[in-house]
Amino acid sequence: MSLSADILPGMHRSRLYAILIDAPRDEADAAAAFWSAALGAPARPEPGAPQFIALHDALPGLVAAVQSVDDAPRIHLDIETDDVVAETGRLLGLGAVQVGQWQECRVLRVPGGHLVCVLPVESDPALFDAQARAWP
Amino acid sequence: MSLSADILPGMHRSRLYAILIDAPRDEADAAAAFWSAALGAPARPEPGAPQFIALHDALPGLVAAVQSVDDAPRIHLDIETDDVVAETGRLLGLGAVQVGQWQECRVLRVPGGHLVCVLPVESDPALFDAQARAWP
Repeated sequence: MSLSADILPGMHRSRLYAILIDAPRDEADAAAAFWSAALGAPARPEPGAPQFIALHDALPGLVAAVQSVDDAPRIHLDIETDDVVAETGRLLGLGAVQVGQWQECRVLRVPGGHLVCVLPVESDPALFDAQARAWP
Repeated sequence: MSLSADILPGMHRSRLYAILIDAPRDEADAAAAFWSAALGAPARPEPGAPQFIALHDALPGLVAAVQSVDDAPRIHLDIETDDVVAETGRLLGLGAVQVGQWQECRVLRVPGGHLVCVLPVESDPALFDAQARAWP
């Protein structure tokens, strides 16, 4: 579903990047151990970001990780984009509300009550180019 | 990551099948409209299961849907299997607790506090054969 050929000036691109399994801090290690065994995906702490434990190859084409949070259990989705401001604006226009910012990531509460983070492109550029959607 | 060649007697198979965006009943339509537009994925009500609105081709290789629930917003994962009893037993052995049953699906609360449903194979059998993991 690449729309790379259709990118026009003023457009930006985005792609669903990751599924984050947010677990309360004192349960995060148990959560990572469970998901690793349940999905047969090696659990690997993220260098330099100890709150994340990646679940390697757990999902086809998506990053999956357990994140330790000071909050109730939840799962949230990350959208990567080549223009965080434009993509955040697009999602706000669809009814989302910005509820936080963490480094370069915007945290949105979207219709239905779930959390979405919008972040700069993290994937390999070739993967992003091949799979991202272009938006006016 | 097919392990089909390694299936031995007594083994069963499972595969991550779906991501369900569970939205409170009176927000489910708004949630489906948001996710459809956000991901560029047509929203299609599921015939015979009006609580589900499928997000067609939203995720590579996984089903995605908004589900209307009488509960707080959450996201849960579905695991499909050729042996619901064996797969449920495997996940209970990893620390999950069964908290419900809905038709043929077992609802588990897993370490970290998230929900997982275990259900009979829903995918095309060829896809399941190609991607499912085999477990003792």
